[in-house]
Amino acid sequence: MSVAELGTSLDLAATAREMGAFIEELYPICRSITGDGLRRTLRAVQERIPLELREVPTGTKVFDWTVPEEWNITDAYVRDAAGRRVIDFRRSNLHVVNYSEPVRQTLSLAELKTHLFALPDRPDWIPYRTSYYERSWGFCLSQRQLEALPEGEYEAVIESRLEPGSLTYGELLLPGETNEEVLISTHCCHPSLANDNLSGIALSTSLARALAGAKRRYGYRFLFLPGTIGSIAWLSRNEAATSRIRAGLVVACVGDAGPLHYKKSRRGNAEIDRAAVHVLQHSGAKHRVLEFSPYGYDERQYCSPGFDLPVGSLTRTPHGRFPEYHTSADDLGFVRPESLSDSLRAYLAILAVIEGNERFRNTSPKGEPQLGRRGLYRAIGGLPDPGQHSLAMLWILNLSDGSNDLLAISERSGMSFSVIEAAAARLSENGLLSPAESSTVAVESTPSGKTK
Amino acid sequence: MSVAELGTSLDLAATAREMGAFIEELYPICRSITGDGLRRTLRAVQERIPLELREVPTGTKVFDWTVPEEWNITDAYVRDAAGRRVIDFRRSNLHVVNYSEPVRQTLSLAELKTHLFALPDRPDWIPYRTSYYERSWGFCLSQRQLEALPEGEYEAVIESRLEPGSLTYGELLLPGETNEEVLISTHCCHPSLANDNLSGIALSTSLARALAGAKRRYGYRFLFLPGTIGSIAWLSRNEAATSRIRAGLVVACVGDAGPLHYKKSRRGNAEIDRAAVHVLQHSGAKHRVLEFSPYGYDERQYCSPGFDLPVGSLTRTPHGRFPEYHTSADDLGFVRPESLSDSLRAYLAILAVIEGNERFRNTSPKGEPQLGRRGLYRAIGGLPDPGQHSLAMLWILNLSDGSNDLLAISERSGMSFSVIEAAAARLSENGLLSPAESSTVAVESTPSGKTK
Amino acid sequence: MSVAELGTSLDLAATAREMGAFIEELYPICRSITGDGLRRTLRAVQERIPLELREVPTGTKVFDWTVPEEWNITDAYVRDAAGRRVIDFRRSNLHVVNYSEPVRQTLSLAELKTHLFALPDRPDWIPYRTSYYERSWGFCLSQRQLEALPEGEYEAVIESRLEPGSLTYGELLLPGETNEEVLISTHCCHPSLANDNLSGIALSTSLARALAGAKRRYGYRFLFLPGTIGSIAWLSRNEAATSRIRAGLVVACVGDAGPLHYKKSRRGNAEIDRAAVHVLQHSGAKHRVLEFSPYGYDERQYCSPGFDLPVGSLTRTPHGRFPEYHTSADDLGFVRPESLSDSLRAYLAILAVIEGNERFRNTSPKGEPQLGRRGLYRAIGGLPDPGQHSLAMLWILNLSDGSNDLLAISERSGMSFSVIEAAAARLSENGLLSPAESSTVAVESTPSGKTK
Repeated sequence: MSVAELGTSLDLAATAREMGAFIEELYPICRSITGDGLRRTLRAVQERIPLELREVPTGTKVFDWTVPEEWNITDAYVRDAAGRRVIDFRRSNLHVVNYSEPVRQTLSLAELKTHLFALPDRPDWIPYRTSYYERSWGFCLSQRQLEALPEGEYEAVIESRLEPGSLTYGELLLPGETNEEVLISTHCCHPSLANDNLSGIALSTSLARALAGAKRRYGYRFLFLPGTIGSIAWLSRNEAATSRIRAGLVVACVGDAGPLHYKKSRRGNAEIDRAAVHVLQHSGAKHRVLEFSPYGYDERQYCSPGFDLPVGSLTRTPHGRFPEYHTSADDLGFVRPESLSDSLRAYLAILAVIEGNERFRNTSPKGEPQLGRRGLYRAIGGLPDPGQHSLAMLWILNLSDGSNDLLAISERSGMSFSVIEAAAARLSENGLLSPAESSTVAVESTPSGKTK
Repeated sequence: MSVAELGTSLDLAATAREMGAFIEELYPICRSITGDGLRRTLRAVQERIPLELREVPTGTKVFDWTVPEEWNITDAYVRDAAGRRVIDFRRSNLHVVNYSEPVRQTLSLAELKTHLFALPDRPDWIPYRTSYYERSWGFCLSQRQLEALPEGEYEAVIESRLEPGSLTYGELLLPGETNEEVLISTHCCHPSLANDNLSGIALSTSLARALAGAKRRYGYRFLFLPGTIGSIAWLSRNEAATSRIRAGLVVACVGDAGPLHYKKSRRGNAEIDRAAVHVLQHSGAKHRVLEFSPYGYDERQYCSPGFDLPVGSLTRTPHGRFPEYHTSADDLGFVRPESLSDSLRAYLAILAVIEGNERFRNTSPKGEPQLGRRGLYRAIGGLPDPGQHSLAMLWILNLSDGSNDLLAISERSGMSFSVIEAAAARLSENGLLSPAESSTVAVESTPSGKTK
Repeated sequence: MSVAELGTSLDLAATAREMGAFIEELYPICRSITGDGLRRTLRAVQERIPLELREVPTGTKVFDWTVPEEWNITDAYVRDAAGRRVIDFRRSNLHVVNYSEPVRQTLSLAELKTHLFALPDRPDWIPYRTSYYERSWGFCLSQRQLEALPEGEYEAVIESRLEPGSLTYGELLLPGETNEEVLISTHCCHPSLANDNLSGIALSTSLARALAGAKRRYGYRFLFLPGTIGSIAWLSRNEAATSRIRAGLVVACVGDAGPLHYKKSRRGNAEIDRAAVHVLQHSGAKHRVLEFSPYGYDERQYCSPGFDLPVGSLTRTPHGRFPEYHTSADDLGFVRPESLSDSLRAYLAILAVIEGNERFRNTSPKGEPQLGRRGLYRAIGGLPDPGQHSLAMLWILNLSDGSNDLLAISERSGMSFSVIEAAAARLSENGLLSPAESSTVAVESTPSGKTK
């Protein structure tokens, strides 16, 4: 089964239910860029797909960065003079500033407030805040909670540990017929935020499971990693292997009710960009294409100038553009099954284009070949329109001079890739097309950087 | 007389009357892609211009195609049980599916209907249908005729012959000062359809007659040929000669009331494309420019990837976009004299641009040359505007660095080519321009492929 | 103080008052393309900035031109039979066609009228007319004056001299750290016309005075010269030196109430074009960007194909587009202080971009460098937006691969150059950027062509 066939045969509704259940399972875990919450999350993925877990020790230099100490937390609260937990990590892991150092301190309300974060404009929501690379501590709470705190003494307790350990990420390569690869990367470092990015983890997992059963021209490398430091660590350990990356997508925020947004790679017209734009344009659904910018998710790293990989990002509403972003309102109810399935459908459609996007040479380039005697053209002539399938064949024959891939032919003709691809298949069967180049090189070496 | 002068001196109204009369003369003939109808048509052209007729024998391989058997027809009808001709070739040659094999057969109405073609949406019109490359037979009739046929037995008779013979086309080269050529190609295979393409035959004939009396920088090669197989046959027999083709136009559907449409060559920005777009933009008339597509007339063959010639097509309403297309409603009344003359004017204007589109080098490129002392600039200064002629000279002097032809200067300045050309002539006379390149190579060899 | 700092520290209101006063001082002088009026004007500039005056003798060949005889005028009038001066040069120097040959002649009204110029559509205004290169004489007057002239005899007297002398222009080089130069050119040949171009003379003078006190990466070469022949003479005498010109602006019509107009150089996307467009786009004010055309001021000469220098022109309403153009209505009241100061601000802003437009290479191009540990990124993460300064740093790091200058980064990011430049400075201080090329070559030779 090809990736294109996968897209039509997959039971999207059932898959969406699986994704929803997986998101529910992962939601309570307190994740961070290191530590056991992240590890537990990756092991839950491992129950579904044969992910390999990598551990990068604290102190490892990864380009300009150093893998930090591992953070683990068991409890945290602010207790009032009466001993009541007025802020309680057990109720929501967002209450603690992620990567807070351990603390046990008695403070006045005024002193305490220098460590509190709230959202005046969204008085019921708890914000999500981090302090990965500067030692500090803090609590997040709703504006209403904050305003309800009476004067008095408070005890702030964070039972966390910052110790040498390692950074964990997960990697899975589904090998392809060639040694070129498609990178699928998703960040796994956020605690109880459903859309950002349990939706991405769940979609990537379901995508890997589906692709495992398909015929793959390209290898598919799935990365489940903590944002920024995780992708930098992977790039640092796999620098040479990046030359195999033909295309890539960063998966995030794929479950909200907003329309799909494709953010282009730094290159702007890489094959992945053209494929994604084509699929969205032919989807009939509302969507937006965004130019590359150096803020966002791990495409920032893949598209850094020292790599400049052809990696874009397909999300629904992009980061920072929905009010629920990085707040407790990005909860289980914020993610919708129909959005998850629609996102997965789009991922599969884009990958189907990448898989099928060959470049051919018309073997009969002087004048049109006689399609009729091959049964490729209707016998009765004179009609005003050649029909879509014949027109697709004419476009392919006309443009297949070795310089245009099928996607370029789809773009110029305005026809959908699937129609063009089907017509190209018929022409190939009839000997009217030959591969223009051997871009499908046999696998020569196994990917490096697979130490554990 | 230059081609530009021809455009202004030609009596367009008289020429339109000639074209109209020629269309009327040709209308009754039953043409096809081979046979005597085609031959008679080309001989009628020969009475007006010194066309050479070529015969390509049945069975000749022309690229991927084979010249088919020659088709000739003397009579055809469907007779009811009472012996009445209910469908009669003698009333309209559209009644027979073009290239029908001979038949003489008695059938029930139901059996007969599998061989009948009508247009339910246009109940009074007879469609035009063909079956060139697959042996079959059929009749076309109006939907009203079809519905009026009572149950009963019918005799279907087609007195046609499919026999070894040849494919005929006509060729005329008006030699130019250089051995570069402009190709003018028109299809001659349709039976009684006036706009498609007796209008093209008539316009091409009048154009050739006019150009014969003009000073020609380029040779003009006129091809009158059956669609598809004719141009493929010509290309196959003149492959080397195609390198001389600097520009080309496929002439079709030039007589209806619609606005002019220019369909670009596959290259999209060839000189012919730029010239046609320029002329239409400066015409002041409604018009449309269409991107290349691989469906249409013989530009499909000239623009096949093995040739990729700079050949566009100038029509009025394009094929398939007017309801009368390929029906009996494309009759003598559908073609208008004012459309024919307007089309001819546009052809001449485009060719005038091609003829005049030289590339110069400013001989005084440092600062402006002093136009005033050469009488090229008015003596009294200080006016807000230099006047159109002076401005044209300034544009030419500024852009004539060897990289811009006069058409590019017209495009960048927004001025019409004729103004730019006239200003360039005055500058040349004054020694301020020299030819930038010798694109006007002397004729070295006579065109090949002229066997008969 | 950098040019950018100059732009914010200069007292624009005071400078506008100085410019206004200078315009008033120069207004009465009868200037032309040669002669004492021009010389007096340049000496007035010399009182403010250390301009060097050059004299090019009559008869000197300058490319296609020859420096004409020097023109000086002491008096001119038309006297009626009663001896009354009905047209009087002493009332307005526009009354005499500039460069009129001497005349003393008695004529009928009809004869006289062949030498008179007026504006029927603007009956109260005196036009400005010239006849530099063809010997003739004439008077300009208002349409009302013209119509009021009764029949009778008139004496036309022009006390002018056309004699061997020289053409005068002024030149000032403010040297820079490198030997690349920015050219600032303004025409000084018009008599009593305030906007065209006393405004340009005044602005150029104030600009030179301001830049004299700034740190300059580039040299600034100021030219005060008669239009056309002056710039041609300068180019002719400084041909080799033009290779040092990195950017240039022609200063004219900078005092009227219209919005700023930037006319691009012939190249269309030279650094000066990109800088000017950027500044105007980010100004928040109404403005227009015009494509290059070969009519206008001395950019015609700098952008002639033999030089093709990156020289644009920043004006308010362009020449010929305001009704007062080249008439007595372009008087002192037509020029506004707020327009002069706004124009000067724009010139300084554009030059600040040119000065600061370096090209860097990210020294840590693989993944993002860790800005946080350098204090370049806020410690608390999780916010939806990185803040403008951080975003600017991310853009610079992402695009600084050696191919993008800071202006290109501003363009792609949509951020203002000043924000990008400030962020680049912080990154450079932190060792994250290194110069991509040594475009700042040490001064090797003094400019040539400095004979007097």
